[in-house]
Amino acid sequence: MVIEDIEVAPPQANEVRIKIVASAVCHTDLYHLFEGMHEDGFPAVLGHEAAGVIESVGSGVTEFQPGDKVIPLFIAQCRECRFCKNPNSNQCEKGWAADRYDVMSTEDSRFTCKGKKVLQFMGTSTFSQYTVMNQMCVAKIDPAAPLDKVCLLGCGVCTGFGAAVNTAKVEPGSTCAVFGLGAVGLAAVMGCKFAGAKRIFAVDTNPDKFEKAKVFGATDFLNPKDHAKPVSAVLAELTGGGVDYALECVGNVGVMRSALESCVKGWGVSVLVGWTDMHDVAARPIQLIAGRTWKGSLFGGFKSKDGVPEMVKAYLDKKVKLDEFITHTMTLAQVNDAVDLMKKGKCIRTVLSVSPQ
Amino acid sequence: MVIEDIEVAPPQANEVRIKIVASAVCHTDLYHLFEGMHEDGFPAVLGHEAAGVIESVGSGVTEFQPGDKVIPLFIAQCRECRFCKNPNSNQCEKGWAADRYDVMSTEDSRFTCKGKKVLQFMGTSTFSQYTVMNQMCVAKIDPAAPLDKVCLLGCGVCTGFGAAVNTAKVEPGSTCAVFGLGAVGLAAVMGCKFAGAKRIFAVDTNPDKFEKAKVFGATDFLNPKDHAKPVSAVLAELTGGGVDYALECVGNVGVMRSALESCVKGWGVSVLVGWTDMHDVAARPIQLIAGRTWKGSLFGGFKSKDGVPEMVKAYLDKKVKLDEFITHTMTLAQVNDAVDLMKKGKCIRTVLSVSPQ
Ligand SMILES: NC(=O)c1ccc[n+]([C@@H]2O[C@H](COP(=O)([O-])OP(=O)(O)OC[C@H]3O[C@@H](n4cnc5c(N)ncnc54)[C@H](O)[C@@H]3O)[C@@H](O)[C@H]2O)c1
Ligand SMILES: NC(=O)c1ccc[n+]([C@@H]2O[C@H](COP(=O)([O-])OP(=O)(O)OC[C@H]3O[C@@H](n4cnc5c(N)ncnc54)[C@H](O)[C@@H]3O)[C@@H](O)[C@H]2O)c1
Ligand SMILES: [Zn+2]
Ligand SMILES: [Zn+2]
Ligand SMILES: [Zn+2]
Ligand SMILES: [Zn+2]
Repeated sequence: MVIEDIEVAPPQANEVRIKIVASAVCHTDLYHLFEGMHEDGFPAVLGHEAAGVIESVGSGVTEFQPGDKVIPLFIAQCRECRFCKNPNSNQCEKGWAADRYDVMSTEDSRFTCKGKKVLQFMGTSTFSQYTVMNQMCVAKIDPAAPLDKVCLLGCGVCTGFGAAVNTAKVEPGSTCAVFGLGAVGLAAVMGCKFAGAKRIFAVDTNPDKFEKAKVFGATDFLNPKDHAKPVSAVLAELTGGGVDYALECVGNVGVMRSALESCVKGWGVSVLVGWTDMHDVAARPIQLIAGRTWKGSLFGGFKSKDGVPEMVKAYLDKKVKLDEFITHTMTLAQVNDAVDLMKKGKCIRTVLSVSPQ
Repeated sequence: MVIEDIEVAPPQANEVRIKIVASAVCHTDLYHLFEGMHEDGFPAVLGHEAAGVIESVGSGVTEFQPGDKVIPLFIAQCRECRFCKNPNSNQCEKGWAADRYDVMSTEDSRFTCKGKKVLQFMGTSTFSQYTVMNQMCVAKIDPAAPLDKVCLLGCGVCTGFGAAVNTAKVEPGSTCAVFGLGAVGLAAVMGCKFAGAKRIFAVDTNPDKFEKAKVFGATDFLNPKDHAKPVSAVLAELTGGGVDYALECVGNVGVMRSALESCVKGWGVSVLVGWTDMHDVAARPIQLIAGRTWKGSLFGGFKSKDGVPEMVKAYLDKKVKLDEFITHTMTLAQVNDAVDLMKKGKCIRTVLSVSPQ
């Protein structure tokens, strides 16, 4: 399967065809390709963190017109289901995410290769000049937004920021720890800072990440490899009992456990943000009985169609950073190099320029 | 070690000696004895769900006088530590519970047997004519309270009721499931009903428990053994996706997992109430990522000294039931028979009469 042979159908009713302008590489692309590798999840076109413009619209589409700047959404917001109607949930029951968590690619795809169906990864597939999506999975954004920056709001930055602000609900004056300092973790650091955290521990086994973490507001830096004892014990010592909030942004069940154990008893909240479905996450029951709360966050808890335009505005208003996440820019043809950079821990985000803006 | 050889020291500074009037058997006594069996946890005097009267007080005790009706508390409320000062936590850092979860018996004991120290189980040890405890672990209650009933507020009923009301924070109109219908689970059913739940599934592998569950407000009854598919799948079918709240009141990590899986994605909350420290509790990370929250509850989240007198008042005001939990009454000498009844699933609570009221 070579990229030139991929065809993208015209939009059907309620669908739009999006010309992708910029698409970044997120670890979830790597997860699907190298770790999860679900047998029913291939062949698929990867990519889900992107921005573009509407190229054409199907019948019944009134919200979008050709030329509108948009961000494809890997979770729907239909505005009609009970999840959309509940103010505390973003788990819309439409779209692939509702029941294909494990497979991660949907057969409800507009992609083909020499006449054969190619699956749409996370309902999006943005490593492509075009993608076709239902209008309930597309956010119209401010025409002033630079697409090569706001593409990051299609996944990683909303995910990490929202995990701190919406899911953990970090409180002013609190102490936080963020495990994993990729774009998701750095955005979580930014979210903790935005919410008024007093002390933010940035934890990563790759110390090259600490400098960036400082830019986003981290106050303390911790490499688990520098310590003989578990990182939870180190954090307990440094904080007199543990942190108020601990966010796991790695996608490793051992780190998930460790993040929970790093929380103070009584009221500590730990949030799973990293994505993995290969092993169970586990803990001593006592950890929860002693008053800790374990949560998880999908797309930072943002209702996707509502949240993304707000985050674009927050960026344009200089309330959240985006440029600082981007360490590399490449072309779509270099996607494999970009994946390799992330695999080696050498980038935060690589933005692939797909089409001219 | 025979009961006649046990001696209980006089109260030291800030301590009171309590004449136990009634003590009930809770599954946590059985857990320590037959399941947890922590090597450092014996020899110990069991019993922790009791009521009595103050017999004598040590120096510095001004809150209690001989004759006061009291309930011994297995978690302290010192009113000074950061956990006591936080309105959302009952995990006082004083007392055995702060760091002896696994051992469950404290060496800081006033019990001896032929001159040798006997440990105090959960800081209480109420299968005894007397116990000595720090005043921060004792609740003074309404003199009108019948001790042979309100003893249940020393553990099981506060635990289950509070797990629903304080920890899960069950909302009016919601759908709940309670796994395990001992006194703790039945009190959780009562708590769900008290909080206004519309539908309460009572789940137990022993169908003899369903009749009582109805008394406390359960609307639906489910024996996992009656179904080929997992109980979470059965509940998902019956509720169109899962319950809003699921409380585990068994003390089994498999049931804990199943309770989490029984919750609806998006906002479902599952609470561990059952006590076990033998195995890890585990789940697919996706369960949390999809918006479920996992919590735990110790003593129903009640700040012990504040909560118990309020629950006594609620009983006297007929807002919560107690009598209906009591299926058997015996004397302290029959404690082994009482333990046996619970082991065989033949009782809800057996109240041992220890001294005349
Ligand atoms: N929940 C969601 O909605 C959602 C959305 C996007 C991404 N994700 C997931 O978030 C995670 C992070 O994504 P990313 O793009 O930032 O990835 P990334 O690869 O850029 O960053 C991961 C970081 O974790 C660090 N790390 C690895 N092992 C570690 C350990 N044992 N302890 C501490 N740090 C360790 C790495 O050094 C790296 O800096 C991935 O699992 C991804 O799949 C989840
Ligand atoms: N967290 C706390 O503060 C706290 C306090 C008190 C008790 N507990 C714990 O709560 C639990 C319940 O205590 P109890 O005194 O009510 O016990 P109990 O023995 O009276 O009741 C347990 C019930 O669980 C049922 N059960 C067993 N296996 C089951 C399964 N697989 N599925 C469904 N039901 C099952 C039994 O039939 C029984 O009815 C125990 O683990 C106890 O240690 C915790
Ligand atoms: Zn919806
Ligand atoms: Zn992503
Ligand atoms: Zn205290
Ligand atoms: Zn108990």
